[in-house]
Amino acid sequence: MKKLSEYTKAELIQRKEELQAAYCEFQNRNLHLDLSRGKPEKRQLELSMPMLDLVGKDEWYSEEGLDCRNYGGFEGLAEVRRLFGELLGVPEELVFPGGNSSLSMIHDAISRAFLFGPLPGFTPWSKLPEVKFICPVPGYDWHFHTCEDFGIEMLSVETGENGPDMDQIEELVKDPSVKGMICVPMYGNPSGVTYSDEVVERLAAMKTAAPDFRIIWDNAYCVHHLYEEEEKRDHLANIYEACRKYGHEDRVLMFTSTSKITFAGAGICAMACSPANRKEAMRVIFYQLVCYDKMNQLRHARFLPDKNAVELHMRKQAAILRPKFERVENILEEKIRPLEIGEWHNPRGGYFICYYAMPGTAKRIVQLCREAGVTLTPAGAAYPYDVDPKDSAIRIAPSYAPMEELNQVMELFPVAAELAAVERMLS
Amino acid sequence: MKKLSEYTKAELIQRKEELQAAYCEFQNRNLHLDLSRGKPEKRQLELSMPMLDLVGKDEWYSEEGLDCRNYGGFEGLAEVRRLFGELLGVPEELVFPGGNSSLSMIHDAISRAFLFGPLPGFTPWSKLPEVKFICPVPGYDWHFHTCEDFGIEMLSVETGENGPDMDQIEELVKDPSVKGMICVPMYGNPSGVTYSDEVVERLAAMKTAAPDFRIIWDNAYCVHHLYEEEEKRDHLANIYEACRKYGHEDRVLMFTSTSKITFAGAGICAMACSPANRKEAMRVIFYQLVCYDKMNQLRHARFLPDKNAVELHMRKQAAILRPKFERVENILEEKIRPLEIGEWHNPRGGYFICYYAMPGTAKRIVQLCREAGVTLTPAGAAYPYDVDPKDSAIRIAPSYAPMEELNQVMELFPVAAELAAVERMLS
Repeated sequence: MKKLSEYTKAELIQRKEELQAAYCEFQNRNLHLDLSRGKPEKRQLELSMPMLDLVGKDEWYSEEGLDCRNYGGFEGLAEVRRLFGELLGVPEELVFPGGNSSLSMIHDAISRAFLFGPLPGFTPWSKLPEVKFICPVPGYDWHFHTCEDFGIEMLSVETGENGPDMDQIEELVKDPSVKGMICVPMYGNPSGVTYSDEVVERLAAMKTAAPDFRIIWDNAYCVHHLYEEEEKRDHLANIYEACRKYGHEDRVLMFTSTSKITFAGAGICAMACSPANRKEAMRVIFYQLVCYDKMNQLRHARFLPDKNAVELHMRKQAAILRPKFERVENILEEKIRPLEIGEWHNPRGGYFICYYAMPGTAKRIVQLCREAGVTLTPAGAAYPYDVDPKDSAIRIAPSYAPMEELNQVMELFPVAAELAAVERMLS
Repeated sequence: MKKLSEYTKAELIQRKEELQAAYCEFQNRNLHLDLSRGKPEKRQLELSMPMLDLVGKDEWYSEEGLDCRNYGGFEGLAEVRRLFGELLGVPEELVFPGGNSSLSMIHDAISRAFLFGPLPGFTPWSKLPEVKFICPVPGYDWHFHTCEDFGIEMLSVETGENGPDMDQIEELVKDPSVKGMICVPMYGNPSGVTYSDEVVERLAAMKTAAPDFRIIWDNAYCVHHLYEEEEKRDHLANIYEACRKYGHEDRVLMFTSTSKITFAGAGICAMACSPANRKEAMRVIFYQLVCYDKMNQLRHARFLPDKNAVELHMRKQAAILRPKFERVENILEEKIRPLEIGEWHNPRGGYFICYYAMPGTAKRIVQLCREAGVTLTPAGAAYPYDVDPKDSAIRIAPSYAPMEELNQVMELFPVAAELAAVERMLS
């Protein structure tokens, strides 16, 4: 095999015919496969089934004696605050546990900033002529849609192997209408990248023109390593400690959840932040609901009493996920690398592999896959306003499909990627 | 016994001494009792324990085949939409099931109106110089605090035996800045009153100056009857049908939950509204979370498959609650009625008895109870801004305390009520 760029036009035309024939075969297979979302597969969900039996007869009291079936316990269970404190590396006093969705807690946090201002004394963002957020790309489509709903102008910043381009961010925050940044700092969705210590330090240290600048730190994959060996794991520096060091402790709002630890639709989540931010959040949330679901908090606290229990549980998750990631990576290495028509980063955790196709071909690749019965995340979804300026990034989510389905997708994918590249070169 | 108003000054002074002596005895008892919140008691919670075993091994699929442990099913389970549709008397297509808190769904609905406008085309309420809501009083303190947080100016309207004063409401809605009304229309919190058919009809029919006027219809007690006999139950007319009849189908947003059917902290809730309202809510909520907790929805749907199952379950709840309500009512009848120092309505459902003390004495009664170790809802809490202009209404929540505790409270309460009245008359 040689690089596609070295093909003659005649060779490209011949190759296109071969690829089209191969592609037709896939179309005839009548596939109905979905790799569009980062959902756990059945075997992963099975791992947490014992949790359902942990709050039965006479077992519904929290360690502080709260009857978890009843109202009360607005601040969540002490055991849950402790657990999330361990996972996020912050004192449990800074943790505020929520319901089944960290996205919802993020939405609420942004909503509070718009309605009331991030802290007392700040102008509600809804009263400002414009609000801008820094959005490292590729990023999480749900974050971008949330920003879009709020009318936040999104400023894309490219993500490199160490995280977002900090020079650019330090420039952008000189604009007082830049009020925040939203990101997945570890095993990023979909970049797979973990922010380096330097990036975290600079985010904490930088001077922002907006005194109420907020980083939405969606640490969704904080314990989602694919490998057990320390040297094969990414490590994320503690941004809250860094912010405190620079006197910016109100800058960061941290979020995480057990959605990809226990049940994706029925986990628990938490926010952690400075005492002032937490107090203001609680002021509003206090009348927003009586309490979050403490029964589900209790199930989780019993199933995962501490970080060590989470580590052991996540090794079982990794044992299911790792072969899938490696399968994708091996196929890309085998089929795409020699052609030099795409790039990717082999993530050491998280839920996604981001494939950077030959510029101008991502949409076509996703279309080809779709027309052969394989749904991928729409091209562009990882960018604000659904526009990837290079039309290059494709998010591959290998978790949900069983291995035999993933194999079928990964037979098709290189064909689609190469066909799109050949079409592009011939056009 | 004679009316207190017929006492001479000397008799009042003597009576005061007797009451003070009696009150001192209560203080010496070292009580620690709490009747402040409408929480179910332990025996009520026990009724729903079998629910916890209904989603175990191999039982986590919804009737449509959704794996309730995973992401997906944003619109909630079909069986839950059907159940809430039955309870609220609307087609299941209008129902949007949520998480464990209808308050949170109400907060979200108001938040959407402020951030985006109630429907596309309307000005977001946050952009308006003022937003006013009609608040029937006495009402639910949580509602009023939510309105206060949003900066909504609250306009109190007195509740009579048929519901709020409709003449007054029809006047108020001529002001275009009056954007809504928030209420508990059945077995009201704390009035105990159910809106009459005429009130419902007039609310649906009235012309409002604001085209985006919304009624937050918090039907928290829609199946919470204390009696089995039809003639001892209140009946609430279907406001959605009435609104439709008058071409105002977008006017009402209905909410309910199982908080006082199953577990107060771990139930499920739902919103029901017109197709346009539902579509707009779903547009925003779609990126606010991936899905609500479907495992808890599934538990509920299996435990309470239809309205009949709910009815049978609520009879068991009523069997626990009814004797407590009757105890309170009997004591009031025996101790207060002859003195003519207070009024109350004997509710036929819900969670509260509202005691209307001699004007100017409610705060003092609550203080006397507190200083004898009995916590009641603060006087004034049932009014916007915590101000009851008559200082008269006291919310009695008999559900949470076991009967022996309720008995102790109801020994104290008439003493406190009479003492406060005597003090007032002597002052």
